[in-house]
Amino acid sequence: MTTDFRSILETFPNPYPQRDYSVETICPEFTSLCPKTGQPDFGTLTITYVPDQLCYELKSLKMYLQAYRNHGAFYEHVTNLILDDMVAVTQPRSMKIIGAFTPRGGIRTNVVVEYTKPASK
Amino acid sequence: MTTDFRSILETFPNPYPQRDYSVETICPEFTSLCPKTGQPDFGTLTITYVPDQLCYELKSLKMYLQAYRNHGAFYEHVTNLILDDMVAVTQPRSMKIIGAFTPRGGIRTNVVVEYTKPASK
Amino acid sequence: MTTDFRSILETFPNPYPQRDYSVETICPEFTSLCPKTGQPDFGTLTITYVPDQLCYELKSLKMYLQAYRNHGAFYEHVTNLILDDMVAVTQPRSMKIIGAFTPRGGIRTNVVVEYTKPASK
Amino acid sequence: MTTDFRSILETFPNPYPQRDYSVETICPEFTSLCPKTGQPDFGTLTITYVPDQLCYELKSLKMYLQAYRNHGAFYEHVTNLILDDMVAVTQPRSMKIIGAFTPRGGIRTNVVVEYTKPASK
Amino acid sequence: MTTDFRSILETFPNPYPQRDYSVETICPEFTSLCPKTGQPDFGTLTITYVPDQLCYELKSLKMYLQAYRNHGAFYEHVTNLILDDMVAVTQPRSMKIIGAFTPRGGIRTNVVVEYTKPASK
Amino acid sequence: MTTDFRSILETFPNPYPQRDYSVETICPEFTSLCPKTGQPDFGTLTITYVPDQLCYELKSLKMYLQAYRNHGAFYEHVTNLILDDMVAVTQPRSMKIIGAFTPRGGIRTNVVVEYTKPASK
Amino acid sequence: MTTDFRSILETFPNPYPQRDYSVETICPEFTSLCPKTGQPDFGTLTITYVPDQLCYELKSLKMYLQAYRNHGAFYEHVTNLILDDMVAVTQPRSMKIIGAFTPRGGIRTNVVVEYTKPASK
Amino acid sequence: MTTDFRSILETFPNPYPQRDYSVETICPEFTSLCPKTGQPDFGTLTITYVPDQLCYELKSLKMYLQAYRNHGAFYEHVTNLILDDMVAVTQPRSMKIIGAFTPRGGIRTNVVVEYTKPASK
Amino acid sequence: MTTDFRSILETFPNPYPQRDYSVETICPEFTSLCPKTGQPDFGTLTITYVPDQLCYELKSLKMYLQAYRNHGAFYEHVTNLILDDMVAVTQPRSMKIIGAFTPRGGIRTNVVVEYTKPASK
Amino acid sequence: MTTDFRSILETFPNPYPQRDYSVETICPEFTSLCPKTGQPDFGTLTITYVPDQLCYELKSLKMYLQAYRNHGAFYEHVTNLILDDMVAVTQPRSMKIIGAFTPRGGIRTNVVVEYTKPASK
Repeated sequence: MTTDFRSILETFPNPYPQRDYSVETICPEFTSLCPKTGQPDFGTLTITYVPDQLCYELKSLKMYLQAYRNHGAFYEHVTNLILDDMVAVTQPRSMKIIGAFTPRGGIRTNVVVEYTKPASK
Repeated sequence: MTTDFRSILETFPNPYPQRDYSVETICPEFTSLCPKTGQPDFGTLTITYVPDQLCYELKSLKMYLQAYRNHGAFYEHVTNLILDDMVAVTQPRSMKIIGAFTPRGGIRTNVVVEYTKPASK
Repeated sequence: MTTDFRSILETFPNPYPQRDYSVETICPEFTSLCPKTGQPDFGTLTITYVPDQLCYELKSLKMYLQAYRNHGAFYEHVTNLILDDMVAVTQPRSMKIIGAFTPRGGIRTNVVVEYTKPASK
Repeated sequence: MTTDFRSILETFPNPYPQRDYSVETICPEFTSLCPKTGQPDFGTLTITYVPDQLCYELKSLKMYLQAYRNHGAFYEHVTNLILDDMVAVTQPRSMKIIGAFTPRGGIRTNVVVEYTKPASK
Repeated sequence: MTTDFRSILETFPNPYPQRDYSVETICPEFTSLCPKTGQPDFGTLTITYVPDQLCYELKSLKMYLQAYRNHGAFYEHVTNLILDDMVAVTQPRSMKIIGAFTPRGGIRTNVVVEYTKPASK
Repeated sequence: MTTDFRSILETFPNPYPQRDYSVETICPEFTSLCPKTGQPDFGTLTITYVPDQLCYELKSLKMYLQAYRNHGAFYEHVTNLILDDMVAVTQPRSMKIIGAFTPRGGIRTNVVVEYTKPASK
Repeated sequence: MTTDFRSILETFPNPYPQRDYSVETICPEFTSLCPKTGQPDFGTLTITYVPDQLCYELKSLKMYLQAYRNHGAFYEHVTNLILDDMVAVTQPRSMKIIGAFTPRGGIRTNVVVEYTKPASK
Repeated sequence: MTTDFRSILETFPNPYPQRDYSVETICPEFTSLCPKTGQPDFGTLTITYVPDQLCYELKSLKMYLQAYRNHGAFYEHVTNLILDDMVAVTQPRSMKIIGAFTPRGGIRTNVVVEYTKPASK
Repeated sequence: MTTDFRSILETFPNPYPQRDYSVETICPEFTSLCPKTGQPDFGTLTITYVPDQLCYELKSLKMYLQAYRNHGAFYEHVTNLILDDMVAVTQPRSMKIIGAFTPRGGIRTNVVVEYTKPASK
Repeated sequence: MTTDFRSILETFPNPYPQRDYSVETICPEFTSLCPKTGQPDFGTLTITYVPDQLCYELKSLKMYLQAYRNHGAFYEHVTNLILDDMVAVTQPRSMKIIGAFTPRGGIRTNVVVEYTKPASK
């Protein structure tokens, strides 16, 4: 599934590849559907990365995340999938995504996934 | 006692066992009874774990925690027991539970328990 | 049903009946059961009243509210019933109850009920 | 358009029609589409009413609001339309809806609409 | 009892009796004893008044409130008694005292008492 | 001066002229220049109005406020001028603007201006 | 004493005398000396007024308030004196000053003084 | 002096001595007297420890802390003394006490003391 | 471009070069223009550094940042450029800049850049 | 200059020199004068130290800080000078001072200085 969404993401050349620095993007308007019940889920995605040669373009990130609006996805799965897509397209030095979802049945869930570029590269 | 409650917990296969990532579940509606006085206690349980092959299913977690509603349990004991149950059923790479209980007699108590899978695996 | 619970409430003589003054009691640990699903509900009850000849005794109020712990009750209904019980037992000059319930399905509900002693008394 | 959505709303008999009391429902997960750009909008709807003979059922309210998920609607228009639908179905003594929408272009908008039953009843 | 404490309060002439203005004094360190259990109670007293010919002196107010430290007193009673003492000594145009006490048994209590000088004076 | 800026504001027909309702627009990114020193000033403008036949269009409002970016304006003056412009273009039933400016020299200033349509209409 | 300080205050012509509007100035850096102990006192002055023909100039207000830095002044007295000075110089339609002073001996004090221009003017 | 108070503290066997876990107890109602002035001091004590064979019983902790109510004690001294008493009675693996005292003369003080069981055990 | 702005920055001799200490400067009023759309961007810059022989003068920093007011700049680029300028002029032992920009399209971005003087000095 | 102020600071013997513990003193009422403009500056000083043989006496600390009230001092300089004075008088195992100053020209500054006793003692 993510194959199709992944192509929405666009990049531009990192203006300072000679320096390790981090960019944090906070997206409080993420929404998808629960695959079991069809009910909408809501959450805030916080994406932090150290760019290598590429930065993701913010408008395309917004469109990419909107693609999940009518798509079924479990919390643990979708956070990992988004990390995979963003790493594949941006090829960062490191990246971390925190998905903080709103309460369901009185219970609130956060998922934290991380990627670090293998040192052997 | 926990033997019976433990069976309420259900799991599903971890969708990303190849990656270490963490899931935090915040349950502000935990309530049990004080074994001495029979009076209700209230607290927020925050469960954070790195899943291995299994994730706990959220609805079964909710039912499991509700099983304590009319059950007598001391703060220090119940937090340790819940960790034992959840580790036994989920077999995580690591797990931490914080039990933050509401004030009694002007005094507020938090209990923090942790489990890490032995390295010898 | 409330007939039985109502008898739990106890009063003591108002120490200053000659003055109109108000007492606000905030009870953040109210819990009952949803009559449809059997699932627990949680809320904060805030009771404000101007006592006439009687004040309610706080410990008996606590026991009275605890009686709802394993009792089925809809938000709108239970807030009105509690007002009826407390007015019947305390016979205040006025009383207001706010029931602020925790989110269910992403939706949070507050119920506000009020009583004023008829002027014709 | 709202004709179709309106039929999703369900009611139950007010358990205390003899007393004026208010119910406040806070729905932080409202989302619709901007009719111009097709981009999603997000907001919190707070509905406060004094029921007459009918109360709205919370689950049907949730389904009703979800019907706007893929529907184009301007802020000012949609808040008024929802009030019309809810008044038509619930026939309350009074009702107020506050739509608080998230920032767009650095600007945040709240819309407040109110209905009071004509005294001539 | 308060007869003895009342004499601790001292006043000074209101520097602006020709103008109605208000002074609010917030005392977060009030403590007395529960007459039933002998256990200490804690609270914040907020005293607001429009002085007439006299203002209370802050240091004497502090000493007066400290006199309750080892004194038994119910919430409703003590708040009214303090108002009586302060009105007797200060003879203000109006005075309001809010006693906000810390939680006991999961329940928090605020008492609000008010005095207005009779217009016929 | 404002004559030129005023023409930037655009309107659309009020979708519910038959009902009195209010729209609040919060603009935290207002900036102009101090006429004395040439230094930039910053503030949040909150515009609340009851539309009559016309609503202002949000994007044009944004462009209108941006026109002050390199324009000299005193706090008291500019808040009144913006009200004049917006009333002239939108002809509302009533309108209120709060300008809350950031501290200068350790002092913070808010300006509140209001317009109500004369009843003689 | 204030005679000398009063002359520090400067005014400029109200740019909109034809409209009743209010200006609120918040000064969190007020400090004077306790006349008894010589110790410094600190507070926040909030001045709100409806200007008539004159507005006070902010820089002169700052200099005026700084004149109290090494000056002895009781809370109740100084708040009233500042109101007198500012009314005398600005001749507003109405003015209100709130002096919120930091805690001394565990007790915090706020003084609220108000002026309204006599209608007979 | 603390010899007498120390005997108030009671313990119970740690239900999970096989696991290192921590218990945090927050006591916002600590009060003692200033040895110099006789004036009451107020503070919040936060006690965090990893129990070994014994846990302290909460009710006895409350009674122990209340013993300081009419007892003279300097901040630095009393925090160290309480740590000594609690370590002597509970013999924990480690313990930390934070005493956060309310402002006096515009100055607020926190004292942090820690104990770790010698490794040579 | 930054060549011209850089010359605005002024320094003064570090009064304590013998000690490593840090200075944090928080500038919440940074604004520039989006190079694509020409629309203004807003953000808070937090600059933290350990000075070596020079400190930057605060007024010149303010003027330097104001130079971006009508200048096009992408978030990632401008934060890196400012670090380059400030390092070139101040030659600190280390410096960190956090640029926290306000939301655009529901997405908020923070950029964190750091410099450490090479050890070989 | 500080030579004279330094003599104001008084100490008392550390009651627990055998244990490393820390004392944090928060002083929100620091004020001095800007040497350039003569205008008052305001800030909060937070002093944290591990005492060795001596503790500073709080009342003398207050008097010492008040000595800066009419004294010209730059942020970076004064924070370092105060550390020098306090280290000279108290001879602590370590000490840290954070000076957090209020905004000037829309810019806020914090200075952090630290001292650690040389290990060779």
